[in-house]
Amino acid sequence: MTTATTDAPQSRHGVDVPTLFATLDAVKGQRELAKFQFRARNRWISGNHSQSTISDFYGAGQEHEHQRAYVFDGDHPAVLVGSDEGPTPVEYLLHALAACITAGLGNIAAARGFTLTRVESTVIGDIDLQGIFGMSDEVRNGYQQIRVDFHVEGTGTPEQMRELVEQSRARSAVFDVLTNGVPVEINVTA
Amino acid sequence: MTTATTDAPQSRHGVDVPTLFATLDAVKGQRELAKFQFRARNRWISGNHSQSTISDFYGAGQEHEHQRAYVFDGDHPAVLVGSDEGPTPVEYLLHALAACITAGLGNIAAARGFTLTRVESTVIGDIDLQGIFGMSDEVRNGYQQIRVDFHVEGTGTPEQMRELVEQSRARSAVFDVLTNGVPVEINVTA
Repeated sequence: MTTATTDAPQSRHGVDVPTLFATLDAVKGQRELAKFQFRARNRWISGNHSQSTISDFYGAGQEHEHQRAYVFDGDHPAVLVGSDEGPTPVEYLLHALAACITAGLGNIAAARGFTLTRVESTVIGDIDLQGIFGMSDEVRNGYQQIRVDFHVEGTGTPEQMRELVEQSRARSAVFDVLTNGVPVEINVTA
Repeated sequence: MTTATTDAPQSRHGVDVPTLFATLDAVKGQRELAKFQFRARNRWISGNHSQSTISDFYGAGQEHEHQRAYVFDGDHPAVLVGSDEGPTPVEYLLHALAACITAGLGNIAAARGFTLTRVESTVIGDIDLQGIFGMSDEVRNGYQQIRVDFHVEGTGTPEQMRELVEQSRARSAVFDVLTNGVPVEINVTA
């Protein structure tokens, strides 16, 4: 199918395209609006189990609250002597990667006049726990590799769908952090 | 307080210490048991909103299921023209970092004979959206820096508590991935 068009309806597959472009224009005119700060507050519960709350963030020149506070558990599974009250922390990284590229895909497809009908992905991460167990200096602590398999359907050719994913990858904040790393500072009061 | 002891009770602040050591011994004797694979399956819903399911993983030589399937939403907030049906993908990275270091802290403190009574942390990430908006070649897509502020209380001196956090950081899978990066492969069928 090559039914892509260049018309811009008010909303395309859930993306308000005129407002998206207006937002980009506003930022172009006032670059300070692009500065955001995101936050998570974590509280240890017991063993390997902790809980984070994500509620407020700063951006576009002011403080914001999400429409509700989001609470997430992290734990280790039973096979790793945890209580399995939530996914492992490393599993959240896989979700974040899929969600980031998929969110961008929604915007980019809409901005380019394509309507998506289906996007699914599977993310797998391979990790050798000899690293975190301190059993080998040659094994890193984190994932050795991550693979994402996307299936995308929408107006446009398969090649056009692949180009949309590639553009979203090229502008993905999570992909950038996971592949290039970021400076992390840790402070402790005790 | 310097009430740290070297005795190993069956359980210390929720960590089954003998089983933890037995697990490490088992892996030392059969290194293949350390190979794990984690997975997330994501499905786009509308606009910037997608949902991931985390349920099964491989490790210690066999397939496992978490005690329940965990489902997480990702979205963009209203200020970024999203529907705010969940945190942004980049916020999940902050949660993952806190949860990973905190989980390790539980294990390391228990293994070294300290009992934790309180662990809280705040994680903040600064990001300039000119990167993902494609408005500047000098601004990266991802966070420019992340800062974690821990508050830790337990048996042992403040210096000992700081050393426990440092050891957990040094063996954190998420810290490694976020600071050093990991190869990510993306495949698309359309």
